[in-house]
Amino acid sequence: MTRDAKRLGEFELIAKYFAPLARGERGALGLTDDAALFEPKAGHDLVLTTDAVVAGVHFLENDPPETIAQKALGVNLSDLAAKGARPRVYLLTIALPRAVDEPWIKSFAAGLKRAQARFGIGLVGGDTVATPGPLTISVTAVGEVPRGRMLTRGGAKAGDDIWVTGTIGDAALGLRAAHGENLRLDDKQRAALIARYRIPEPRSGLGPRLLGVAHACLDVSDGLIADLGHMAAASRVGVEIAVADVPLSSPAAAAVEADRAAVSELLTAGDDYELAIAAPPAKRKQMADLAAAAKTKLTRIGRVVRGRGVVARGAGGATLPLSRKGFTHF
Amino acid sequence: MTRDAKRLGEFELIAKYFAPLARGERGALGLTDDAALFEPKAGHDLVLTTDAVVAGVHFLENDPPETIAQKALGVNLSDLAAKGARPRVYLLTIALPRAVDEPWIKSFAAGLKRAQARFGIGLVGGDTVATPGPLTISVTAVGEVPRGRMLTRGGAKAGDDIWVTGTIGDAALGLRAAHGENLRLDDKQRAALIARYRIPEPRSGLGPRLLGVAHACLDVSDGLIADLGHMAAASRVGVEIAVADVPLSSPAAAAVEADRAAVSELLTAGDDYELAIAAPPAKRKQMADLAAAAKTKLTRIGRVVRGRGVVARGAGGATLPLSRKGFTHF
Repeated sequence: MTRDAKRLGEFELIAKYFAPLARGERGALGLTDDAALFEPKAGHDLVLTTDAVVAGVHFLENDPPETIAQKALGVNLSDLAAKGARPRVYLLTIALPRAVDEPWIKSFAAGLKRAQARFGIGLVGGDTVATPGPLTISVTAVGEVPRGRMLTRGGAKAGDDIWVTGTIGDAALGLRAAHGENLRLDDKQRAALIARYRIPEPRSGLGPRLLGVAHACLDVSDGLIADLGHMAAASRVGVEIAVADVPLSSPAAAAVEADRAAVSELLTAGDDYELAIAAPPAKRKQMADLAAAAKTKLTRIGRVVRGRGVVARGAGGATLPLSRKGFTHF
Repeated sequence: MTRDAKRLGEFELIAKYFAPLARGERGALGLTDDAALFEPKAGHDLVLTTDAVVAGVHFLENDPPETIAQKALGVNLSDLAAKGARPRVYLLTIALPRAVDEPWIKSFAAGLKRAQARFGIGLVGGDTVATPGPLTISVTAVGEVPRGRMLTRGGAKAGDDIWVTGTIGDAALGLRAAHGENLRLDDKQRAALIARYRIPEPRSGLGPRLLGVAHACLDVSDGLIADLGHMAAASRVGVEIAVADVPLSSPAAAAVEADRAAVSELLTAGDDYELAIAAPPAKRKQMADLAAAAKTKLTRIGRVVRGRGVVARGAGGATLPLSRKGFTHF
């Protein structure tokens, strides 16, 4: 630790590392003002979301700063994607413990820069405070959606298909691997899963394409079963999924091969940041085309039914006993 | 501590204490979704601001939860006021240590409710996370201003008057009183100053009235001299103020009476959350009328000059030596 971030001072820190992240945003006023200006686009609504990540709770203290930055921004981008919103701007509040040094900040800012470029979002404001506690990063993201078109979790209808993007359960296995569990994985598999835990892959390419096609959407952050339960409750319907159809990565499939009970963990663990979507069967071809256009893996895993709650069916249609309904950091 | 907030669970906590705060806001979706919908008003820009407060840094751990809530929201409302923006909605992220119990949350929510009603702002979203560290509250506030009219700190012109709302230095004295310093005050004076430290008084009534009248505005949060310095730098001008004209409350005036050096502390301490305004002399009558309409004390304390930096003149025009240029929590 050569130079202490605190010794650098808040204004210098902002000028040196954060102001460059705001360069493309006129409304950011160079991060020299107390507030940002945002000019809404005519005919559009805004989607506002905020999520915080805390060291030791949502990420590991020794995770690389670049990945922590991508996670802090990514979990918010995932919420925007689930609403069908295009990312526009974000505000960043960072509570820094004394031990955070300048190289850490530099690497953190590099992670933000990478995520910004990839997802087309700009920094327009924030706050930097000192804390005697753990590193805490709170992001508020603003997205844009054509007026009256925002997707919610509340529109699923009996008869709809249930789809899910990407693969499920990798982040949970990645966290176990990061904690040193062997999981009978080779080094490459282990690294892939840890990366999935550290860096969410917000489905920003697919989300806005779902407008007018999907009936309901949300992102899987509390665990697939719990989040499908949120969709079912908000839509006043039931959801049935076929466990065999839930897409698993090859390391996750290997874990299930080794331990059949592991599947229940993968379905109920958090941090997937995939989208779960309800859409009418008449749109199957269109859903597949949209996923291809967004270069996003999309898998049909079940359907919406009359009733309430979520049922996961295993081989032969038996209901899978689920030990817990989802994971909460709280 | 009867029931632990953690045992109550995040969803219950939101449903019981925070969802009622979102009742008037359709876009909040009852706080049951991951994001909020915001419909911008035609012909308006948005002003976005975020500020966090940390226990032991920005407020005292044993401050009443009601006042902590009002401070967390108030420091953000103050930023909106300085931009001439009307408050619209806010998002709240709260990182709760284990020791926070349900009565604390209840009282905190009551403080938010009071501030919301008073300033016309509604809760639309947020995040509740657990932390092993101190209580940390991050608010992002959204305000509205007629298109292209937002005030900044950057428009002051040589010849302008410098005005300030309310009284300066009370919060600094209040913090000292809260720490048990005697300050030769009676109980009523002490209570008044502590209240000024705990609960900022955002000038939301005056701010929007300044549009088209003031050239520049900012809120005094780092200390009057430091913040006038920010205005001077952003506007590429200098500022001169007459120390004798800076409005002091009667307890603050008594403190200066007892110790002449105290004046320098009051001018450089933070947490005033008053507005400092630059406006042309031709608008003096109008400024006084606007202040009267907003029921806000407004005092002319100096002027904008060619040059750079801030000069504070004492009796006979001598420059006051200022030991520090402002206070930073960082």
